[in-house]
Amino acid sequence: MQLNIVPFSLPLLATTTETADSSLVVAGVLLSLVVIYFASKVGGELSSRVGLPPVLGELVGGVLVGVSCLHLLVFPEGGADASSSVIISFLETTAGLTPDGANAVFASQSEVISVLAELGVIILLFEIGLESNLKDLMAVGLQAVVVAIVGVVVPFTAGTVGLMTIFGVPAVPAIFAGAALTATSIGITSKVLSELGALNTKEGQIILGAAVIDDVLGIIVLAVVASLAKNGAVDVGNVVYLIISASSFLLGAIALGNIFNKSFVVIVERLKTRGELVIPAFIFAFVMAYLADVIHLEAILGAFAAGLVLEETDKRKELQRQIIPIADMLVPVFFVTVGAQTDLGVLNPSIPSNREGLIMATFLILVAIIGKVITGFSVFGQPQINRLAIGVGMIPRGEVGLVFLGIGSSTGVFSKPLSAAIIMMVILTTFIAPPLLRVVLPQKTEEEGFNQDQLVLETSQNTPLAISSRENLENTSDNYES
Amino acid sequence: MQLNIVPFSLPLLATTTETADSSLVVAGVLLSLVVIYFASKVGGELSSRVGLPPVLGELVGGVLVGVSCLHLLVFPEGGADASSSVIISFLETTAGLTPDGANAVFASQSEVISVLAELGVIILLFEIGLESNLKDLMAVGLQAVVVAIVGVVVPFTAGTVGLMTIFGVPAVPAIFAGAALTATSIGITSKVLSELGALNTKEGQIILGAAVIDDVLGIIVLAVVASLAKNGAVDVGNVVYLIISASSFLLGAIALGNIFNKSFVVIVERLKTRGELVIPAFIFAFVMAYLADVIHLEAILGAFAAGLVLEETDKRKELQRQIIPIADMLVPVFFVTVGAQTDLGVLNPSIPSNREGLIMATFLILVAIIGKVITGFSVFGQPQINRLAIGVGMIPRGEVGLVFLGIGSSTGVFSKPLSAAIIMMVILTTFIAPPLLRVVLPQKTEEEGFNQDQLVLETSQNTPLAISSRENLENTSDNYES
Repeated sequence: MQLNIVPFSLPLLATTTETADSSLVVAGVLLSLVVIYFASKVGGELSSRVGLPPVLGELVGGVLVGVSCLHLLVFPEGGADASSSVIISFLETTAGLTPDGANAVFASQSEVISVLAELGVIILLFEIGLESNLKDLMAVGLQAVVVAIVGVVVPFTAGTVGLMTIFGVPAVPAIFAGAALTATSIGITSKVLSELGALNTKEGQIILGAAVIDDVLGIIVLAVVASLAKNGAVDVGNVVYLIISASSFLLGAIALGNIFNKSFVVIVERLKTRGELVIPAFIFAFVMAYLADVIHLEAILGAFAAGLVLEETDKRKELQRQIIPIADMLVPVFFVTVGAQTDLGVLNPSIPSNREGLIMATFLILVAIIGKVITGFSVFGQPQINRLAIGVGMIPRGEVGLVFLGIGSSTGVFSKPLSAAIIMMVILTTFIAPPLLRVVLPQKTEEEGFNQDQLVLETSQNTPLAISSRENLENTSDNYES
Repeated sequence: MQLNIVPFSLPLLATTTETADSSLVVAGVLLSLVVIYFASKVGGELSSRVGLPPVLGELVGGVLVGVSCLHLLVFPEGGADASSSVIISFLETTAGLTPDGANAVFASQSEVISVLAELGVIILLFEIGLESNLKDLMAVGLQAVVVAIVGVVVPFTAGTVGLMTIFGVPAVPAIFAGAALTATSIGITSKVLSELGALNTKEGQIILGAAVIDDVLGIIVLAVVASLAKNGAVDVGNVVYLIISASSFLLGAIALGNIFNKSFVVIVERLKTRGELVIPAFIFAFVMAYLADVIHLEAILGAFAAGLVLEETDKRKELQRQIIPIADMLVPVFFVTVGAQTDLGVLNPSIPSNREGLIMATFLILVAIIGKVITGFSVFGQPQINRLAIGVGMIPRGEVGLVFLGIGSSTGVFSKPLSAAIIMMVILTTFIAPPLLRVVLPQKTEEEGFNQDQLVLETSQNTPLAISSRENLENTSDNYES
């Protein structure tokens, strides 16, 4: 007997006869979230105890619960099906899930967790935008552009030429792999900078600005490369469209922002029901994310732009305060999912294509690291700046490298070893950047970074002032109750 | 060319060849959330301006954007497919969604929004648990049990007998419809009580306690009725299992809670990375929700129990403060979705089965309202209590009534008019309860209720104390930046 059909979550597939029991989907999502939160907290705390950025621990925690180890959190993308998911087996044991229904529940649950991860990184970039200052970013704009361009051109050229000359890879896959070396992962880099309290340093601003421009450049490179792979020729119209739409989106957002942020405050101040600040802010952030998504930029760039615009308003501090618990709830879903989907199987040298891949990977990793580290030395007019930190901050490729891999694989240009080599490059640059950044940004960390963090904590939770006002409330409501 | 494949959100169906482009699923979810937030804020604000509880406005806002009106937010359950969703058409126009891919994107997006709605009501009940005091609840426990039992027995008997004698409905569907009259919607009732600031009044505690017990009783009634409909006999074993598992869950949660809440505080105080309070709280709440779900109770009862347990800890106030923005983000998804799935088409008298249904509906609505209102008069030993308010608080059937309808429909026992009549009963009791409660609880609202709300707002955001400490922070971080 199906007792606990959840009323408003519904059969998921309009097009197939196989539907998932929505109560079981909810149970699967709840279990997945428990696993994610457990992995993120254990990993993050251990990482922080040994002096590394917590996000590294969240990634490693994700690897432990993911496809490489415990199989608690697996996704259909990695070729996994319901039978390889420990959570699904657990639901079969505890919740009466039938093997017939398992695939549908697995598919729905994975889809929901993937979208929650995506919402997590959207909220993360919105929060990063709220913590960044547009004027500060503009002040280092030219340096950021130079860093971004150098950081795209050098790894792309070195990677492509190296693969063709040293490894004899044909032109199209070599160009594709070179392109995969270009774009920096804003998510990882900005989270580490934020954890180190270095987001608002000059270095942090240059890295963030360059990572944003980098992402736009990467998307244009991708468009060129993908049309090359598909038709053997560059689709100039599409490339021009992308350049125009990306530039007008970013500039438009900033221009519009100056007008909109005033109306935002007016609207928020007129609202009287709960969520009067968060809901209008999310409407704006999600509309921007949607716009960025549909003009073929990434949704996270839209959320970042929305954060930048709202940072200019008087509501900044209160909004930052309210976003913290929401980010704490959703952002770990992103990082643990990234870790969980990382298949360390490509590092296994007993598989022949991996051995060949390992040699290519060593080359790609060197190009990836050196090609970004030197970008720091292209910064001009800033004699005091920590050039090494800027270069290191640009290293992580994270999810962006995998987008290139995914599209490249779908056109069938990659050999198995090359594809394994790209995955290894992405894994290594993603996992190496947080500890390296921690090493090259030491002073800031001890003095400004952690102090600033503590200040936020104290002011919001533990100052005598805040406590006394909370105690007042408690007394008052006790009076009401008695 | 597929440019913006989102890296970590994946093809959704392991079992079919039709997969949804995950970037488009994210775009669809973002648009749906924008619609939900817009509907909830406009509805909630208007409702609050005319002196009604905001949640009523959110429900009505949901109706406006849902299957009955604008078709912005529709779900496969209501028989809708991708072509009837305005958001999907919009994605086809703006984001290059192809008609072939539309069904998969529609299915995934609906699934994600449904689970977000479910997470919303789980968080709502967790928050309500955090605001409720276990000792206060226990103090009115006996009254709550009596109210719950009267509120189940009277509508069930009157409904079943009335349908059989007046309308000549056969025994099994009459019993099913009678059962659909029993369970109160905790979500709607507790939200309204919270909005009126009446959650911690004696009336509020009795209503809440009775609604919880009601829900458990309703699930047992459902088990009896469903096995009756299926086999013509009551599955005694299953009913005994349900009674034992439900009682041991609720009592076990409370007993375990007294031990666990100490370790919770110890753990939380040792954590140093972000989310040190919210993440452990959610791990606990989601585990409890999962347990409640798999023993065939509702997930929301587990979340409520978790909130009650954590309310006993020193972290209560800080946790309440951090849950607010999370609830503000997710709870509206639930109420707007409830509204959006409400098909007002059953009220259209030009359809013959509706005309017959309208007469039966009138009868069911009278039984539903009177059967609950009289429960207030079963409260003993509380001469000063607002009996009418208790009865009115038990009126909304909301989602629970629809669960009965869904299961009844799946066994094929309902005639079309009877099924339309049950939907009308659910709609009317759900929408009438918030304004009625507002009317019968007037004094509390003006004095305790809104004042208390204001106090919370002031203490957390606007007291001179809080502002001065935030300004300190701002100055301090400005110093760092310069």
